[in-house]
Amino acid sequence: MAGGTEQPGSSVASRLLALLAAFDDGHRTLTLSALARRADLPLATAHRLVAELVTWGALVRTPAGEYTVGRRLWDLGLLAPVQSGLREVASPFLHDIYAATRATVHLAVRDGLEVLYLDRLAGHASVPVVSRVGSRLPLHATAVGKVLLAEAPEEVRRSAFAQLSRITPYTVVQPGRLNEQLGRVRRDGYASTSEEMSLGACSVAVPVRPRDGEVVAALGIVVPSLKRDRPRLVAALQVAAQGIGRQLPG
Amino acid sequence: MAGGTEQPGSSVASRLLALLAAFDDGHRTLTLSALARRADLPLATAHRLVAELVTWGALVRTPAGEYTVGRRLWDLGLLAPVQSGLREVASPFLHDIYAATRATVHLAVRDGLEVLYLDRLAGHASVPVVSRVGSRLPLHATAVGKVLLAEAPEEVRRSAFAQLSRITPYTVVQPGRLNEQLGRVRRDGYASTSEEMSLGACSVAVPVRPRDGEVVAALGIVVPSLKRDRPRLVAALQVAAQGIGRQLPG
Repeated sequence: MAGGTEQPGSSVASRLLALLAAFDDGHRTLTLSALARRADLPLATAHRLVAELVTWGALVRTPAGEYTVGRRLWDLGLLAPVQSGLREVASPFLHDIYAATRATVHLAVRDGLEVLYLDRLAGHASVPVVSRVGSRLPLHATAVGKVLLAEAPEEVRRSAFAQLSRITPYTVVQPGRLNEQLGRVRRDGYASTSEEMSLGACSVAVPVRPRDGEVVAALGIVVPSLKRDRPRLVAALQVAAQGIGRQLPG
Repeated sequence: MAGGTEQPGSSVASRLLALLAAFDDGHRTLTLSALARRADLPLATAHRLVAELVTWGALVRTPAGEYTVGRRLWDLGLLAPVQSGLREVASPFLHDIYAATRATVHLAVRDGLEVLYLDRLAGHASVPVVSRVGSRLPLHATAVGKVLLAEAPEEVRRSAFAQLSRITPYTVVQPGRLNEQLGRVRRDGYASTSEEMSLGACSVAVPVRPRDGEVVAALGIVVPSLKRDRPRLVAALQVAAQGIGRQLPG
């Protein structure tokens, strides 16, 4: 995608896309110079292309003079068929779990070596959680992640084990201990974590699979503490996961 | 944004954006030739630029060889601060309404002459509705739309009245009758419709406003029939709208 003099079109297109790629979960708002730096473009080029993106509505200039993703990209992104079948089927069940537990509820899938959060419900009294819809987190530090990692192909597990980062003092980063946990997840049918991703937050998750099929997603909840509640929470999640699974194409 | 020989960059950028703009709610999947036609580009140019968009992940080629919006744009779009404060504040209240009514619940704002659906909850037994998150519908044919139209500036109302389209046999397209309804919405504090947008679906909605502020959104539900239920539904919506309003910055 180098472009250059032969294919000026390609080159401009890739520059424009590099400007869009400068935004992510940790960079929701950028100054023009940060944008140019992250897209690896001269300031003048960035300036000209950003102006086009703003005119079109892909980017918006904030009152402080920085740039952020615009409503037009929000509109466009919502047209993507990102697991829309799974999300539609799961949505009512997420509400059921929320109604039964009042905990933050998550629907997540594995995307490479990360958990991708497809949907989230949070209530008035839910614990603050780091994940939003569209967020990605490492597989080893959350309950939904452990469910997905336990069911992932061997080579995915190997790659994930090679990069176990410590997020809190309680994150499990010893491959042996994690491997033992994943075995237990497969045996017991659920995963749980305690302050491994955020201090003050515990999570429980179960797998979602179509009838007789492979695991396609994980359904989880986040609560301030698990103590006596785990059996009740696991039961609520499993009932919902069964319901979702029955409605998925096999 | 013509471009041409002087500014090849602008021109390529605008072509690329025209390809993205070819997708909308009614055109979620397009063949290459439909894409080229909708973007007003020669097939060869479209082909080359679409290939770049696919490489980057903005578009995805379906098994049938058509194109659709890709996960990377979904990710990017979710970074847009589209009323994210309002959506976060409203989310638990939407669940409360759903729990109390089991009806499809909507949070919507006015965007120009349309209703923009910011959030939606639908349950197992909810009536099928046409709106999804990110959908836009005309202001005059839904309850959330009537609430927003009743509270809109005079010139918005004038423009909306100039284009009252008939969607079902029950859509109110007589300006005099609609005007009378909007007066009632302002007086009573809620709007309701009966099969004006979709046959078999009725809706009720109330305004959401920060303490002592202007209306910023509408909260509505869709049910198969209103009959005796209207007072109960209006009450549930009003309680939730109050709760949301109290938490909004004034």
